[in-house]
Amino acid sequence: MKIIQSPSVFSFSLDAVLLAKFTYVPIQKGKLLDLCSGNGVIPLFLSLRSKGTITGVEIQERLYNMAVRSIEYNGLSDRLHMIHGDIKEMPKQLGYGKFDVVTCNPPYFITPSQEEINENEHLAIARHEILCTLEDAVYAASQLVRQGGKVSFVHRSGRLIDIITLMRKYKLEPKRLQFVYPKAGKEANTLLIEAIKNGKPDLKILPPLIVYQDDNEYTSEMRKILYGE
Amino acid sequence: MKIIQSPSVFSFSLDAVLLAKFTYVPIQKGKLLDLCSGNGVIPLFLSLRSKGTITGVEIQERLYNMAVRSIEYNGLSDRLHMIHGDIKEMPKQLGYGKFDVVTCNPPYFITPSQEEINENEHLAIARHEILCTLEDAVYAASQLVRQGGKVSFVHRSGRLIDIITLMRKYKLEPKRLQFVYPKAGKEANTLLIEAIKNGKPDLKILPPLIVYQDDNEYTSEMRKILYGE
Repeated sequence: MKIIQSPSVFSFSLDAVLLAKFTYVPIQKGKLLDLCSGNGVIPLFLSLRSKGTITGVEIQERLYNMAVRSIEYNGLSDRLHMIHGDIKEMPKQLGYGKFDVVTCNPPYFITPSQEEINENEHLAIARHEILCTLEDAVYAASQLVRQGGKVSFVHRSGRLIDIITLMRKYKLEPKRLQFVYPKAGKEANTLLIEAIKNGKPDLKILPPLIVYQDDNEYTSEMRKILYGE
Repeated sequence: MKIIQSPSVFSFSLDAVLLAKFTYVPIQKGKLLDLCSGNGVIPLFLSLRSKGTITGVEIQERLYNMAVRSIEYNGLSDRLHMIHGDIKEMPKQLGYGKFDVVTCNPPYFITPSQEEINENEHLAIARHEILCTLEDAVYAASQLVRQGGKVSFVHRSGRLIDIITLMRKYKLEPKRLQFVYPKAGKEANTLLIEAIKNGKPDLKILPPLIVYQDDNEYTSEMRKILYGE
């Protein structure tokens, strides 16, 4: 698979890869949706795990265009398609409760003051909650997923309480939670969380995922996720 | 240190030891309080880490008596003392906001129907939310700790959302969270959480704690906690 990206506009992160691997997917068919898609990395990776149809939503036109080109380049236009738009408009546009699975790797950082913000507008929008807050993303995901369907997010682990609180607020019951640690003995920096729309409370904390060995090489677990080794 | 216990009434658990090690303690002085103390295992272990005064509260008379005897036996009566009473009465009895640190290893299980409950009343009260719910314990801890003081709980990891929600409800802001995994590659079964009364949101997820190696011996990390090796 080839994925088009540009360091000056947007490069996909390890977190997107982890989310695409973490989330439940229906294997043979189903409707999958990815919000805040950036250059389409999550829809592209999900296409390796599911034969369902996959829709990505991205608000920035340059990133949307990259995603479209990557989908065409990889010959996936029959079942992957991108929408250039605002996730807040999607329930009205795509319908309520129509998706089996919704994924989202949202902007991570609460919008800082105008001076502090990244001067590169593309990077700023992708990284900061300028056009999309965490609450916008959780609310949109909840409206778009069907009853009993699954919603998965990746986020900074420091936002755990916010994401759990917002999921509960919008009837997404957290069921699987995994923390990602940069190295053994370090604090977690990332969390992966999957919820079920109107599910029963029963949260499992999955085994920790450690990214790097002490020698700064990927752990065997990470190599398996990244390269299938 | 010698700790009196009885398998037919109450034996302290690994979780109590982990909580006594996890919680912040003032080293030279300070007022520490342990709720749902059982046979006093947490006050006794805390006395190894802090020179402050430590109070334990236990509602079951037989367990309270064991705790008192263990404190006397270990010559700690000058700064450890037990109260035989209901934690819900303690704010009125001991005063609001008087403690620097409050710890609690509460009953873990939501009260089942009368038939399912443990027939041994002592074990049932220690294990089930019969005389004390998680909300009772969090509320009492919040009333008893001073502004900026610390409250630590150990609980089943499946209760993460409940405990976070209750802590926030009672102005205890979670700051440190650690998951305990029985073995590498397994789901967590226990959580340790420390909150600050009226603290600012800033949650850290500590490195995972793995209890057993694949050969069922304690990991080196656990041996360090248990035996100081």
